[in-house]
Amino acid sequence: MKQYQHPTIDQITLPGVLHALSDPVRLNFVQCLAKLTCEQPCGAIPTPVAKSTMSHHLRVLREAGIVQIRTEGTQSLTSLRLDELEKKFPNVLSSILQVPETDILDKNG
Amino acid sequence: MKQYQHPTIDQITLPGVLHALSDPVRLNFVQCLAKLTCEQPCGAIPTPVAKSTMSHHLRVLREAGIVQIRTEGTQSLTSLRLDELEKKFPNVLSSILQVPETDILDKNG
Repeated sequence: MKQYQHPTIDQITLPGVLHALSDPVRLNFVQCLAKLTCEQPCGAIPTPVAKSTMSHHLRVLREAGIVQIRTEGTQSLTSLRLDELEKKFPNVLSSILQVPETDILDKNG
Repeated sequence: MKQYQHPTIDQITLPGVLHALSDPVRLNFVQCLAKLTCEQPCGAIPTPVAKSTMSHHLRVLREAGIVQIRTEGTQSLTSLRLDELEKKFPNVLSSILQVPETDILDKNG
């Protein structure tokens, strides 16, 4: 069974968190994940990218300390580390999650 | 006299803002700028990088819509676009500015 490595709360840095959230696909994924109340299997959240690309994005989010991934049987279950991040960087992630989806993308892009 | 281009508030995107702030040097510069109440000439805020590198960082911050730069005589004066950003993305920049400097850098880096 695949074991995922996660940074401890002390190892999480603000630049790392901001970098992980600076990609529209990852930001959108995190916003969707935040709206759901339980762990989600990979694939439960629709994304506009290939599965291999999404694996990369999930790795960036996990290594930055934003998501927790664990395996159960053949599934990988993903959840947000919102409580830990709010404790370390108060209001940073929660305020980012409040930004409407329509304001995430460049209207001129 | 050099004229700097700035994105309008509508052109500013959240991924762009987060990317600009995901570099420790830029993040530290923005935190220092926020502590000062008026426009600052380039060079007034000490940074650990060469002048040419800082010019690049300032360009990234300006193009992301985080700072405003204008020339007065031979000086370039830099200020934060905090009010505009707070209106567009409530609490995002202000919560990032509240993170203590000691929590910005990776303690294991």
